[in-house]
Parts: sequence; structure tokens; C-alpha cells
Amino acid sequence: MNLTDCQMTIVGLGLMGGSLGLALREGGVVRRVVGVARRPETIAQALELGVVDAGTLDLVEGVKGSDIVVLATPVRTIVKQVGQVALHMRPGAVLTDLGSTKVTVTRAMAGLPAGIEPVGGHPMCGKEVTGIEAAEAGLYHGATWVLTPLERTAPDAVELMSRLVEAVGARPLVMEPERHDRLVAAISHLPYLLAVSLTQVTSELGVEDAEVWELAASGFRDTSRLAASDVRMMLDILLTNHSAVAEMAERVAGRLRELAALAQVGDEDGLWKELERAAEARRAWGERSQALQTQVGDARCE
Amino acid sequence: MNLTDCQMTIVGLGLMGGSLGLALREGGVVRRVVGVARRPETIAQALELGVVDAGTLDLVEGVKGSDIVVLATPVRTIVKQVGQVALHMRPGAVLTDLGSTKVTVTRAMAGLPAGIEPVGGHPMCGKEVTGIEAAEAGLYHGATWVLTPLERTAPDAVELMSRLVEAVGARPLVMEPERHDRLVAAISHLPYLLAVSLTQVTSELGVEDAEVWELAASGFRDTSRLAASDVRMMLDILLTNHSAVAEMAERVAGRLRELAALAQVGDEDGLWKELERAAEARRAWGERSQALQTQVGDARCE
Repeated sequence: MNLTDCQMTIVGLGLMGGSLGLALREGGVVRRVVGVARRPETIAQALELGVVDAGTLDLVEGVKGSDIVVLATPVRTIVKQVGQVALHMRPGAVLTDLGSTKVTVTRAMAGLPAGIEPVGGHPMCGKEVTGIEAAEAGLYHGATWVLTPLERTAPDAVELMSRLVEAVGARPLVMEPERHDRLVAAISHLPYLLAVSLTQVTSELGVEDAEVWELAASGFRDTSRLAASDVRMMLDILLTNHSAVAEMAERVAGRLRELAALAQVGDEDGLWKELERAAEARRAWGERSQALQTQVGDARCE
Repeated sequence: MNLTDCQMTIVGLGLMGGSLGLALREGGVVRRVVGVARRPETIAQALELGVVDAGTLDLVEGVKGSDIVVLATPVRTIVKQVGQVALHMRPGAVLTDLGSTKVTVTRAMAGLPAGIEPVGGHPMCGKEVTGIEAAEAGLYHGATWVLTPLERTAPDAVELMSRLVEAVGARPLVMEPERHDRLVAAISHLPYLLAVSLTQVTSELGVEDAEVWELAASGFRDTSRLAASDVRMMLDILLTNHSAVAEMAERVAGRLRELAALAQVGDEDGLWKELERAAEARRAWGERSQALQTQVGDARCE
């Protein structure tokens, strides 16, 4: 099947779904984009911004006749919607999602009728702002986009999704859901928890001494930025990936204490070694990811 | 004393010292800027970039006849240099610094001969790149610049320093050294440790599964950015502020575990409440600090 012949439905027109619609329509990637949202105002905005060709508040109506359905809602909503759309999708159609955890989603997808082709998905990009107002066609440029097909998924469906991902400027990466969830616990969910706990500790201190907020500068800004993320989305992520998240939180808490202890006993060489190793690893990643960005010609998503 | 009559010496021509020289000379703030560095190439660069009017490798030579001496070296070097410059400074001259911890520095300053006016200093800005190449005149624009005078310090000296701080676009904030060190442990040293420990955990995981680096995106980038900071500078900071740093590391480790535990037991309401509160606190600070930036017309430092 050619992408350009496909009708595609995007369920959920927030930052991620909205940006996908814009990218698809600007690039003429598919024949037609249908949007599903909960609020009529969102549909109105989506039409005005050029995110969709048509919009509806009715999930069943929205997925009918589409060749690809993308669930772009919070993870636990995705899980519910997988069951709700299953009986109304066209046989042979692909069902995918943009959720940040994949074990729970692909488990739900395993219950789909035989005619539907499930391919879990997770584009590794985003912003700490939410809503269709923040949507931009370039959001997916240069991003790694994980695909987690099931064993039952037809190779053609994975191939179609890979072409879709590439058409919006991202890099498809096929991976098992368990492996995905553990890795993103470290590089995505943990950074969020670190930002939240840094903000919590600063707020606590701010009760004693409000001047702490006056002193907060660029270091605090960068490290705490993710604390302003969409809480509903993050709540679902943490609840559906709690084991891996707890493992990573425990690991980082251990590292923190080790570093603080090295400083307290004055082990200058030991502390230097750890700090230097981390600095080198971070710089090396920064250079690699920047080089990758230069290749795709966009610096937004890594 | 008028600033425009002052000769000023900057000891250490890295990012901070270099940027200060640029700001002072571009703004015609003082009569003359003398630079002290360890390497002749740095002096050559400083002269070429317009950071100083004259440069020397000799600390004693460099501070002679100056009205204000700024030590812009790592904290433990500052402590040594306080003793080294003391006997060679002009009576009545001000000795200040740009070090990120203030208890150790002001303790060293307490031993200065009576003729010297000590004012500890800490501008709350910076970048994760180092060296005079990265210097920029606007670095201090909009930053809070903490001043920690000693009890013995003449009010005129504090006044002179406040005018200097304002002349480069920053906001002076007088504060006791102990209070400063505890607050910056939370909003500056802790973010660095969080970035380092996140990088450490990701590196550990990268040994098992190198693909983790492929998945790292903007969330990881922001949260880990500070791990690439100048290790020598950060080492001195952690060693001279280890108690407050250990307290904050312990607090954040406790918060992390609490958040992970709420997710593990599935306490949705409890987790929601914590995440929402942190999101609100972070957004409120972001808006306030942005408003402040708009006032001074520069978004680099908060």
C-alpha cells in the first residue's frame, strides 16, 4: 500500500497529535487526515491550523475507513481506546500510538481482532508545553521513533509505519516493548522525576527562605524544566512503567549519595574521577547527537 | 570613589573573568582593566578579544595599584590567592571574587590586613562551556549577583561593588555567606549532581545496551546538560560546600524514592498531587524569571 493512498486518523489533537497532522499535511504524506478530539473547540483549531482535513468528536466515526489509526492520547487512555476502536476499523488497517510506555500498550494490542495490524510507536521528542497551540510540523525532524510491532504483526504493516516515520523526518527503530520501557525509564522518565524532585526540594527550602527563587539561574532552569510537563501524560507514564522507573530512581539516588559522600570525606581524586567520566560521557553524547542533527538539518529533537 | 577612576584587576581569564572584562570595557565602566592569567596564550587572546587593557602572568605585578581586585579562579585557588595578593594590594582597595561558595572564601578574607576591603561575590550565571573563547559581554545581564561583605568591610566598599554589579547589568543582593551556600547547594550544586548522576546511570545502562544513547532526546539533554560543566570548578565547589550539598542530595534522594513508591503502589491521587504541585511551582518560577528577563532585555541569565 502507498502512503499517499492512505486515509489516516489521529485520535487526540494535542502537541504530539497536532504536530503529526501538520507534518503529514504539509508534506502531502497521506491522502487525508481525520482528527478525533474531545472538545469541539479543538476540532475548530485543528481545522484552522491545517492539522486535519476533517474532524469529529466521535471515536468510532473517526476511525471508520481509515488505513492507519494513531492513538495520540495519554497511555492509559490509549489502552482503553485500543479496545474501543478495534471493532470499527477497516480489516487490514494499521493501529499505532504515540504513547511513552510500550509494554502496557502492546499488551492491550495483543487482544485485537486478527484483521487489525498493531504496531506500537513512540517518537522520542516533545516539548514541555502542551496543546494543539504548541503544535509544529518540524517536531519529529531528526527524532528517533521507536516501533514495537507484535509477533502477529504483518511485515508490510511495519514497513508502512517505517515509511510514515521517515516521511515526517524521523528515524524508525524497531525494538521489543520491555527493552524500550527500561531504556526510556532511564533517559526520559528519570529526568522528569529528577526535575520534579529538584523543584520539590527548592519549594521546601523556599518556605524557609523565599530568596532561593531569586538565586535560581540557568542551571536550575535546565535541570528543572521537565517538571512543567503535562501532568496527566506523565502520571500515566509513571503508573505504567513503575518497576523500571523505581529501579532507575534507586540507582540515581545511590549515585547521588556516593558523590555527596566523596565530597564529605574529601576524597578529591575519587570525586574528580567520577565527575570527569560523567563530563566526558555527556560531551561525547552531545557531539554525536548534534552531528546527527546537522545531518537531518534540524536541531529541535535529538 | 568613582568607578570610572578605578583600575581593576581580574585574576583568571576564563568564561567568567573574560566576560567581566568584556562587559567592563564595552561599557567604559572602569578606567583600566588589568588581567592575570597562567598562560601567555590566554593573555594574548584577552588582548585580542578586548577583554583587558594589559595582561601579566605575575599575580603580584597584576594587583599592584589596582582599586578593585576580582579573583575569578576556582574556589580553592581563590582561597590561596587571597593570602598571596593581600600584602601587595593598595591600602583601601577592594578584594572580591566570583567563586560559587562563600563560607570558605570569606573565612580566608577575614585574615586580610586591615587596609584591604573584602567583599565576597557570586554572580548567578554561567554556561556549561569554559574558557575565554566562550566569554561574552552580556553574560551578567539580568543575573542576581550575591555580595557577602564581612562585618569589618567599609560600607563604601559594598556600595562601590554594588555599582560595579549594576554597571554590567546584574542585580546586587547582599547576603550572609552561610545562607548563600545553603541556598545555592539547592539551586545550583544539586542540579549539577543530578545531571552527573543521571549521566552515570545512563552510562551504566549503555554498557548493557548502547541503544539507550540513541533514545536520549531533549528531556535527557536539558536535565544532563550541567554534567558537562568545568570539572575543576565544580570539584572545588563540592569540596567547599559538602555539608549543604549532602543535605540537599539526601533530600532529593528521599523525594525521588517517595515519587517512585507512589507509582509502585498505584497511589494515583497522591502522585497526581505531588506532580501537579511541582508543575505549578516550576511554571510560576519560569514566568517570574522570564518577566524579570524582559525587564532587563536579555534572556541569557536569570
